[in-house]
Amino acid sequence: MIKVNVFYPNEPGAKFDMDYYCNSHIPMVKRKLGAALKRVDIDQGLAGGAPGSPATYVAIAHLLFDSVAAFQKAFDANTDAILGDIPNYTSIEPIIQISEIQMD
Amino acid sequence: MIKVNVFYPNEPGAKFDMDYYCNSHIPMVKRKLGAALKRVDIDQGLAGGAPGSPATYVAIAHLLFDSVAAFQKAFDANTDAILGDIPNYTSIEPIIQISEIQMD
Repeated sequence: MIKVNVFYPNEPGAKFDMDYYCNSHIPMVKRKLGAALKRVDIDQGLAGGAPGSPATYVAIAHLLFDSVAAFQKAFDANTDAILGDIPNYTSIEPIIQISEIQMD
Repeated sequence: MIKVNVFYPNEPGAKFDMDYYCNSHIPMVKRKLGAALKRVDIDQGLAGGAPGSPATYVAIAHLLFDSVAAFQKAFDANTDAILGDIPNYTSIEPIIQISEIQMD
């Protein structure tokens, strides 16, 4: 099982519409990716580790797939729909990484 | 439910002993934090989002608690043991943030 981590940096003044993200964007991603997408977790940043510090990321999504190949196949067929929807909820350019789940 | 995200930046030349982390550090953290710690997920970075790019983080831990207060109470009583063990598996200074779970 692999995880695609999508990080939205907490940039001053940047907008991030969590309601649209959770109730419109992610449901669309689920429909597009279908059975290849095994699970989605969404974290909303509250605070940094040091007292009074801001969260590094305003939002983090974790998308689980059986394999990197399964992710790429599903994503490549829906790139335009998924990436084209980003401006509807944020002006932030996300950072993406692919991880292997070591423990869950 | 809140999540403490712990990010280990993928710094060139830095060591990260995933075996020690998963089989010694995290089990110790679980023993110390006891019932306050509801769940731990560990991600190991494989690659970045762009073809051939490196992962931003060599490892990410996600620790779930009922509330920020529950996390702080459990962590504050065990700070020395947990932070003092970090040099045993890495020279990387982790980035920490506290998140609210929006979807899982």
